[in-house]
Amino acid sequence: MKICNIRTENGIHLCVETVKGLADLTKYGFVYDTYEVIAGKGIGELKNLAARDDLPLVSDPVYAPILRRPGKVVCVGFNYPKHAKGAGYKVPDHPWLFPKFSDAIVAANTDVTLPPYETSYDYEAELVVIMGKTAWNVKKEDALSYVFGYTCGNDLSCRDAQMLTTQFMIGKCFPGFGPCGPLIVTADSYDPTRKHIQSYVNGELRQDGYTDEMFFKVDELIEFITRYMRLEPGDLIFTGTPSGVELEHKVGEKNYLKPGDRVDVVIEGLGTLTNYMI
Amino acid sequence: MKICNIRTENGIHLCVETVKGLADLTKYGFVYDTYEVIAGKGIGELKNLAARDDLPLVSDPVYAPILRRPGKVVCVGFNYPKHAKGAGYKVPDHPWLFPKFSDAIVAANTDVTLPPYETSYDYEAELVVIMGKTAWNVKKEDALSYVFGYTCGNDLSCRDAQMLTTQFMIGKCFPGFGPCGPLIVTADSYDPTRKHIQSYVNGELRQDGYTDEMFFKVDELIEFITRYMRLEPGDLIFTGTPSGVELEHKVGEKNYLKPGDRVDVVIEGLGTLTNYMI
Repeated sequence: MKICNIRTENGIHLCVETVKGLADLTKYGFVYDTYEVIAGKGIGELKNLAARDDLPLVSDPVYAPILRRPGKVVCVGFNYPKHAKGAGYKVPDHPWLFPKFSDAIVAANTDVTLPPYETSYDYEAELVVIMGKTAWNVKKEDALSYVFGYTCGNDLSCRDAQMLTTQFMIGKCFPGFGPCGPLIVTADSYDPTRKHIQSYVNGELRQDGYTDEMFFKVDELIEFITRYMRLEPGDLIFTGTPSGVELEHKVGEKNYLKPGDRVDVVIEGLGTLTNYMI
Repeated sequence: MKICNIRTENGIHLCVETVKGLADLTKYGFVYDTYEVIAGKGIGELKNLAARDDLPLVSDPVYAPILRRPGKVVCVGFNYPKHAKGAGYKVPDHPWLFPKFSDAIVAANTDVTLPPYETSYDYEAELVVIMGKTAWNVKKEDALSYVFGYTCGNDLSCRDAQMLTTQFMIGKCFPGFGPCGPLIVTADSYDPTRKHIQSYVNGELRQDGYTDEMFFKVDELIEFITRYMRLEPGDLIFTGTPSGVELEHKVGEKNYLKPGDRVDVVIEGLGTLTNYMI
């Protein structure tokens, strides 16, 4: 099942993908928003609506914020060996976790402001896990049953700030630096194991990998993270980025993001997350 | 002005300290809670009530949650030189920032659960800054005008987890690992510059320092942090801990926290933050 939001004259409406296309659920008496669905409300009704083939379709789907303010956004560093090696690191013995805050999470087709006093802005295409249940001390074997769904993410980074101290957080928390979307594919209809993942800057391919390159898999990440923090429905895990970001290039060869750039993150089965840097 | 909350039969009530003692504001038609006051509501009315000397006092003040869920909790590592040196570090060239999440923030007199599968639990007495305005790219000269007030904090840490990778976050984010309270002293009546700061475990003095030992001062921290992230009213800064935590002791001499321990954080003018480990 695929859900997303659209902007309409009457506010933001939740949509579901039917066999014929995207349908605006608000027209059919569906009262829950994305977060309520993530928390388990209206799922049966949603599935029934998704199975219908007689719903008028949304003619011009502009994808709007798919996620309200999550309590925790947990990101994983150097989880793709080729990326780690390219950046001069090895894959860590344990996942390196750093945060984003909820004001980093913005929608597909949202502009992201690059503060003018820094320059080393980099993209990172990432598979994002959306938690569906409270998860605390979850074992690997059970981990995937705690997932609501998946979406594309862009772990936008300011490299000079990220590397200014030992703690990556400083370079990861600018407002808007965690675009997600355009849609959520629910866990019952998506296997994240081996999916093509790419990023493009102004149409030029920059990253081109597969999610099975991840050193720590989604279930292992959930086990590790929930040993140390309690995840709640709607919390997000950015699972790391494949090779091809500017950080990996030698000094003088970097082609960092600048205002006016368009960044696309494309993940097989999850669509394209497009944002413009301003 | 000092404000806090008490638990009553009719819920949690905001109190203010008057010349004669603590008064329950709910009885005088004051409708705002802590977060609304932090955001600027009812301040004049609150000041008038605080100035009165005819309000019946709270007879048995049990301090309850003083802070609702903040969006950002930003912590500073190794900001007291003696602590940094004792732990085998030097004071960083720039503040090392790491997060807690909002579910770490619990009140004075709240029990904190130490997960049984780890053992290296440590206390950290810290001056906590409560932001009062949206702060983004704030200069040092203006920084203190963005502060709503101050409280005591305990940056509870699991050292093995903190040091498992380069990223401290893992050892800092257990639920309840950021007790704050018991009261908020507003910025107009508190100078954080040189205050006595101590911690006690089961009544035994462990940390004994002064806030003027901070390498990066409160105004410098606000300038640095708001270059990289946008702080909102109610967001918290844990400003680092003085020397005396168990981390600084040699192997074999550590006396980490265990269930049943009582930890007191005492900061001059801010009262005593007491929590029990369970």
